[in-house]
Amino acid sequence: MKPGDRLIRHFLQFKDLRAEEYAYLFARTRIIKSRFKNYERYQPLADRTMAMIFEKASTRTRVSFEAGMYQMGGSVVHLTTGDSQLGRAEPIEDSARVISRMVDLVMIRTFEQEKIERFAAHSRVPVINGLTNEYHPCQILADLYTLIEYRGKRFDEPYILDALKGKTVAWVGDGNNMANTWLQAAEILGFKVHVSTPSGYEVDPAVAGVSDRSCYEVFNHPLDACRDADLVTTDVWTSMGYEAENEERRKAFVDWCVDEEMMAAAKPDALFMHCLPAHRGEEVTAEVIDGAQSVVWDEAENRMHVQKALMEYLLRGRIG
Amino acid sequence: MKPGDRLIRHFLQFKDLRAEEYAYLFARTRIIKSRFKNYERYQPLADRTMAMIFEKASTRTRVSFEAGMYQMGGSVVHLTTGDSQLGRAEPIEDSARVISRMVDLVMIRTFEQEKIERFAAHSRVPVINGLTNEYHPCQILADLYTLIEYRGKRFDEPYILDALKGKTVAWVGDGNNMANTWLQAAEILGFKVHVSTPSGYEVDPAVAGVSDRSCYEVFNHPLDACRDADLVTTDVWTSMGYEAENEERRKAFVDWCVDEEMMAAAKPDALFMHCLPAHRGEEVTAEVIDGAQSVVWDEAENRMHVQKALMEYLLRGRIG
Amino acid sequence: MKPGDRLIRHFLQFKDLRAEEYAYLFARTRIIKSRFKNYERYQPLADRTMAMIFEKASTRTRVSFEAGMYQMGGSVVHLTTGDSQLGRAEPIEDSARVISRMVDLVMIRTFEQEKIERFAAHSRVPVINGLTNEYHPCQILADLYTLIEYRGKRFDEPYILDALKGKTVAWVGDGNNMANTWLQAAEILGFKVHVSTPSGYEVDPAVAGVSDRSCYEVFNHPLDACRDADLVTTDVWTSMGYEAENEERRKAFVDWCVDEEMMAAAKPDALFMHCLPAHRGEEVTAEVIDGAQSVVWDEAENRMHVQKALMEYLLRGRIG
Repeated sequence: MKPGDRLIRHFLQFKDLRAEEYAYLFARTRIIKSRFKNYERYQPLADRTMAMIFEKASTRTRVSFEAGMYQMGGSVVHLTTGDSQLGRAEPIEDSARVISRMVDLVMIRTFEQEKIERFAAHSRVPVINGLTNEYHPCQILADLYTLIEYRGKRFDEPYILDALKGKTVAWVGDGNNMANTWLQAAEILGFKVHVSTPSGYEVDPAVAGVSDRSCYEVFNHPLDACRDADLVTTDVWTSMGYEAENEERRKAFVDWCVDEEMMAAAKPDALFMHCLPAHRGEEVTAEVIDGAQSVVWDEAENRMHVQKALMEYLLRGRIG
Repeated sequence: MKPGDRLIRHFLQFKDLRAEEYAYLFARTRIIKSRFKNYERYQPLADRTMAMIFEKASTRTRVSFEAGMYQMGGSVVHLTTGDSQLGRAEPIEDSARVISRMVDLVMIRTFEQEKIERFAAHSRVPVINGLTNEYHPCQILADLYTLIEYRGKRFDEPYILDALKGKTVAWVGDGNNMANTWLQAAEILGFKVHVSTPSGYEVDPAVAGVSDRSCYEVFNHPLDACRDADLVTTDVWTSMGYEAENEERRKAFVDWCVDEEMMAAAKPDALFMHCLPAHRGEEVTAEVIDGAQSVVWDEAENRMHVQKALMEYLLRGRIG
Repeated sequence: MKPGDRLIRHFLQFKDLRAEEYAYLFARTRIIKSRFKNYERYQPLADRTMAMIFEKASTRTRVSFEAGMYQMGGSVVHLTTGDSQLGRAEPIEDSARVISRMVDLVMIRTFEQEKIERFAAHSRVPVINGLTNEYHPCQILADLYTLIEYRGKRFDEPYILDALKGKTVAWVGDGNNMANTWLQAAEILGFKVHVSTPSGYEVDPAVAGVSDRSCYEVFNHPLDACRDADLVTTDVWTSMGYEAENEERRKAFVDWCVDEEMMAAAKPDALFMHCLPAHRGEEVTAEVIDGAQSVVWDEAENRMHVQKALMEYLLRGRIG
């Protein structure tokens, strides 16, 4: 199957794919990761080139996508703001038309979701959201796959989502792009999110774009959000782009530090995740992130493997 | 055929190659583009590495060369001014000696043509001009190939240049590197350029370096230049590096906006081209660039394909 | 042999490898270089990705490692300070944990040696020192291999180090990372370094980390250091990161310019080397660096070939 044989699919928000497509993606991730770990060469994207457009710098997104593409046999053109600020030298629509004539896939990390949506609307090739102010779907893909890896019982496609169904995820901290994406994922995949944010940093369900409010519950106290959770997860207090609010945020978030008490309130086998970089002593204590329940390094590595499955799917469709 | 088996050939100005070599290059472009569109893997440059040196940023040149090299199986080392400003840390001659020991091909986008000429004089490997203040030969390659693609009747080597012979190209706007290169191409390939620039922005035939002035004609009014043209083409009013003159240029160029009246003066089947990025409402109206005669997206994509043929030729010589 | 089958080996200082390992590395370099020159494809690192982290810019290190990796079939993710300043956004230990989950090899060019040591201590994959304030082991690898290439008689592993044994290397100039590394190499490989630095810029044997002081001798006058040397070598007066001391250094180093008188004091067949970029008229005269005894361009090219052998060794261990 080749691009052009079907409608172009993008991955701009978590809700761009359906539950059965996630089942396929996670099952593929397991196969692709296993091949990589066993040094079996697997290069389905040989000849394919991805443009990566970064308006915000990022080590993790950069390395995970770029190394992932190389492992699949493909190549990467890495564009930063210095090279090309979307919408400055020319309309975004023109950039999309030109770039998508030359490459097979585009990953964009930018500020406004609206920018990436406009780019995608004029692109001939699939576009992946590598983080916007509103959403971070690739990170949630990685988190969910890590949860499956640790808690799943069967990894074949019809059963692989069972590890997620009915689970409780505690989101502690900023009602940001990660929180929005957790809500979308919960609605699609059938789990529940306990959200606890400081006042003034709530999740906006209109931005998250969930229609069914039963997929999440709001708690004033983070300890209550963690109660009986299968997964406790958080993010830095001040995400990139909000540095000016740093001082104000430090005060507001002081009680939203994931600590051993919160982990003790969760299920005994609860996992801890963090999309990194982490600030020990701020949003999480060293005891928790460096402790036995933390799976943050596997989570980081899994970014690469889920994205390889995603790139394969967007470029080649369903295999087998 | 391998580098070292023959004299090193560079592509620093359009007149560095002869008409019969352009016939070969355009015929190869057609083959290479067709293979790419049909997903036939063709990697004659596997094992080969190109250094790309950018002293001016550029999305289009960057992506077209880099993706093109990957499609041909090769690799790219992308150097920006931050990494290596030609002539600052060491004499250009030394940079040329060192870099050309490590890679197979060098593309340079810089300011003065003199810099690239000096680099090439001390390089062991072919050097390609990716844009200088004086010339932009790769863009003209793309424009000519696009004209052939739309207007050609036979695409085999002995006849492929017929689509250009006797044609009229209207250049409307700045007497810049694009204009200079159009003149060189006209002299070599047997067509005519109608040039209309604001006063003070004329083409300097000494810089263009054409010996036969019959290859171009100067018009005071852009509408006159467009009359009976087969191709109308223009560029931004203020090229990179001239931003300080922006206000002054806006005033001088106000009548040099390609509009529907100019297109109507040209032949009924005339094409419109623009090397992009475009500023709608300045050098061209939205009606023209987004209209039926505009082929700017194909033109942009063809940058990549003609450059693949060029890289192949410089590295491997004539094939077949 | 695959990573994980054995202890991870790093190349952080010259003394991280033993004499017999250098014999192997230089013998491999000869094979790898010969294959490259003969256009024989040799891609033992296909599927492997290296992260290159640059906190100091560098053309030479950049191109030599990156092109070298491509020639061996591998890929490179190039990170600069803008993307990831080690230790700023997160502890170096966390960066090491994350990056080394995604790539097979890491090259770092940074300021303090302590940073690279900490990175390596938490890395799952080999780490290479691409230059620190204290050491520059890859450059010395290149210099030694170049000396072997010019003066060696037998190039098989048991004899290849003979070309170095008992030789005298004159180091003229700054007691910097290059000087430190020359001392380490001398101790391990059995040659002698004559060091002459301006007062205040002496080599610190504690930093160099040599236990046997018989491997080097200090001379007040550079001419004395050059007497009967097999190799005369120097570096810029002001290395990157010391620009603030530029004026002061110009005065202090004025007599430490390698000139024809110094070369005449050395052995008649003495070679001249310089890790480049060079400032003619400062640390070396044009007559010397552009003269018959200078092998600086071969030395520069050999950076790439020795590094290919090094990457192969760190990733695949001993072959054959």
